Amino acid sequence: MAQNRLDAVINLAKRRGFVFQAGEIYGGSRSAWDYGPLGVALKENIKRQWWKAFVQGRDDMVGLDSSIILPAQVWHASGHVATFTDPLVECTQCHKRHRQDHLQEAYEAKKGRPAESMADITCPDCGTTGQWTEPQQFSGLMKTYLGPVDNEAGLHYLRPETAQGIFVNFSNVLTTSRKKPPFGIGQVGKAFRNEITPGNFIFRTREFEQMEIEYFTHPDEAPAWFDRWVEACWEWFVDLGIDPDNMRRFDVPEDERAHYSAGTIDVEYRFGFQGSEWGELMGIANRTDYDLTSHATASGKDLVYFDQATGERYTPYVIEPSFGLTRSLMAFLVDAYEEEQVPNSKGGTDTRTVLRLDPRLAPVKVAVLPLSRNEQLSPLARELAAKLRRHWAIDFDDAGAIGRRYRRQDEVGTPFCVTIDFDSLEDGAVTVRERDSMAQTRVAIDELEAHLAQGLVGA
Amino acid sequence: MAQNRLDAVINLAKRRGFVFQAGEIYGGSRSAWDYGPLGVALKENIKRQWWKAFVQGRDDMVGLDSSIILPAQVWHASGHVATFTDPLVECTQCHKRHRQDHLQEAYEAKKGRPAESMADITCPDCGTTGQWTEPQQFSGLMKTYLGPVDNEAGLHYLRPETAQGIFVNFSNVLTTSRKKPPFGIGQVGKAFRNEITPGNFIFRTREFEQMEIEYFTHPDEAPAWFDRWVEACWEWFVDLGIDPDNMRRFDVPEDERAHYSAGTIDVEYRFGFQGSEWGELMGIANRTDYDLTSHATASGKDLVYFDQATGERYTPYVIEPSFGLTRSLMAFLVDAYEEEQVPNSKGGTDTRTVLRLDPRLAPVKVAVLPLSRNEQLSPLARELAAKLRRHWAIDFDDAGAIGRRYRRQDEVGTPFCVTIDFDSLEDGAVTVRERDSMAQTRVAIDELEAHLAQGLVGA
Repeated sequence: MAQNRLDAVINLAKRRGFVFQAGEIYGGSRSAWDYGPLGVALKENIKRQWWKAFVQGRDDMVGLDSSIILPAQVWHASGHVATFTDPLVECTQCHKRHRQDHLQEAYEAKKGRPAESMADITCPDCGTTGQWTEPQQFSGLMKTYLGPVDNEAGLHYLRPETAQGIFVNFSNVLTTSRKKPPFGIGQVGKAFRNEITPGNFIFRTREFEQMEIEYFTHPDEAPAWFDRWVEACWEWFVDLGIDPDNMRRFDVPEDERAHYSAGTIDVEYRFGFQGSEWGELMGIANRTDYDLTSHATASGKDLVYFDQATGERYTPYVIEPSFGLTRSLMAFLVDAYEEEQVPNSKGGTDTRTVLRLDPRLAPVKVAVLPLSRNEQLSPLARELAAKLRRHWAIDFDDAGAIGRRYRRQDEVGTPFCVTIDFDSLEDGAVTVRERDSMAQTRVAIDELEAHLAQGLVGA
Repeated sequence: MAQNRLDAVINLAKRRGFVFQAGEIYGGSRSAWDYGPLGVALKENIKRQWWKAFVQGRDDMVGLDSSIILPAQVWHASGHVATFTDPLVECTQCHKRHRQDHLQEAYEAKKGRPAESMADITCPDCGTTGQWTEPQQFSGLMKTYLGPVDNEAGLHYLRPETAQGIFVNFSNVLTTSRKKPPFGIGQVGKAFRNEITPGNFIFRTREFEQMEIEYFTHPDEAPAWFDRWVEACWEWFVDLGIDPDNMRRFDVPEDERAHYSAGTIDVEYRFGFQGSEWGELMGIANRTDYDLTSHATASGKDLVYFDQATGERYTPYVIEPSFGLTRSLMAFLVDAYEEEQVPNSKGGTDTRTVLRLDPRLAPVKVAVLPLSRNEQLSPLARELAAKLRRHWAIDFDDAGAIGRRYRRQDEVGTPFCVTIDFDSLEDGAVTVRERDSMAQTRVAIDELEAHLAQGLVGA
């Protein structure tokens, strides 16, 4: 999976309107990306599949949607104000700031050995070597002020993870949902981190989306649930089409784990970045009772669970499967991308770009293509498109040669194209073309919805 | 629709886990609210119906998901930095700040006539009359800083409306989606306003969700599209069950309109607030070419549309239907709420609380209720629940008397309860109870999915 393959995916994503640079007309920003018509559809489909698999589809899970802005107290109790920091160094020549660990990693990737000291490292901005300030801890939290005056009383933080909104609602959810451990709370939403060096397209951004589960268990059962969740998360990606050869598990060593974690396994995907081609897709952490205990202490509220069956009182342990939604989207795009040689009408071959997205994820399910723009075919085709649109996301395209229109649908992953031709006016049937095999089947219009539904189960 | 009815809805929403106060264990905040298991399900269902009706279901619409944090330039060009302000006065006695217009409105609501000057108005905090500073304009925008230093270069604003993300992507969407005016872009997402006095439950908060459409038309066609959108929005609420007697249109006078609007119609709902019982649910504005022209000027990019068919070049006018998602949720809850007298087994009557939510919106579609917690009934009931969970959001409840369990489902709006009893073991059939009529029907388990699907079309 070479860098130029990743470039081809990024190029396709921009060209076809999956992803745009945020504020592009003002020069753009690497802080955040916008999702165009196809991107938002793909992203929503990923969310929906995740929700169906992990929340709606399980009787031991419920959902939540907590707010992005939370009072400073929450982030003091969670440990984020104290420890959610990165070491920052400044080049004394050009005064640009960098993360010390990123500079050291880049040095090692280039030279094949770690730098002995910062004196070895050259500033990527101005080229000066070894002129760095001592590292300072820089907070990754984004601040904002609420209320009529900008002072400490109004200081709030944008959440760097959705998880804390779940912990502070633990007691509310427990009471109102009548669940008992083992059970989990799932949530999808935006999170914000003031990354010093955002980059790699939508991989590392300051504004991003997460899909997180906090799963509350008896402490003795936490290790078994940890293993089950690692398995379930892995299987979710594979079921939705990710090639397992492009995924790996990384058992995060103690000194690299987040402050709350007693054990973390990252699931990494082979994105094909320059330098290291692997990147973190999600992580499963054993947060122990760290968060509930911290919030109980800081808030003075009792967050202990009383098990009526056994008479035991305990603070549940938490297993946290935390998915990057936008990273998942990038992985699904990269994994689905293929350029293949297909025979053309002249006896040679053409290159066909095809996104082999699972039909459940494909942003457009069916494209309706009248063979030509025509007074007889167009009304029939539009009527058909309107009918199908009641069930699925439909594209309608009547511009250009039919072969080119097939290619346009292939490269955005549309599972089915329905072509209306002059025979359709006679026989009441249409041609259904399947994306991967390119097989064409003649289907009666009366049976079209049922035919497509078979290929679009769960979509 | 009395205040105590609204209180009953709010009480239900909190008690059953639709809505929790954000950061409640830390004393809570009126800035934002969290959506519990039932609330997030209801909110997602509203979003999905909106998306199906206005984006996926129309061939003149596409979707977008742009970022929350945008560079300051965007908000200078949009006019928000200069004009998105409220007049703030401070009581010189207690130093609390208030919105001048809100104080004046409260005075008028109480006295039946407007205040002659601020000298008439008493501070609601300390009771001092007429000791106010001159009004100062206070920005409703929330600031944050991105990047490694807190300076002007890093100054960004959290969007106070999702709309600007659409305008700055107009050209990208036009190119990649191959749409042409009249066409629209729809988006659902969070927005942030530093409201001085949040209140009325989830009605006025600092963090909230919008569902917005920016519909681009030829300037000559803008008035007709404005009317069509007013109609379509009204009908959307009615189709999903809002009683039209509880809605009204308000033609916003020129001096009360937002700075960009040449005409605004608000759709108001009778929430039943103290003072004025009506509140804005959504608005349809004619934003003219204000936004595209402003961004073209500020960015130097050409945002003019060239119509190939007529050879005309023009900056499209924009009709903006802007829905409050969280306000819509509140309206759906209030409108669905009913307390009714029903006969009980003792020949008298009981009060039944029922949420008559449209089945498409109901957070739980079907509750599976084994008649008693029992070794024979429970496995069958759990198996049935697992089967139904593949299609719908399912609750499983085996605790307490069946009548109480029906009531628990009624008050959260579950359209169907499925009861498994001892006869089920013999005849392979279950009892299906419908929420509104309370009618009970015996249905063979083999036919259960088809039976429920009829009552849950589009859900």
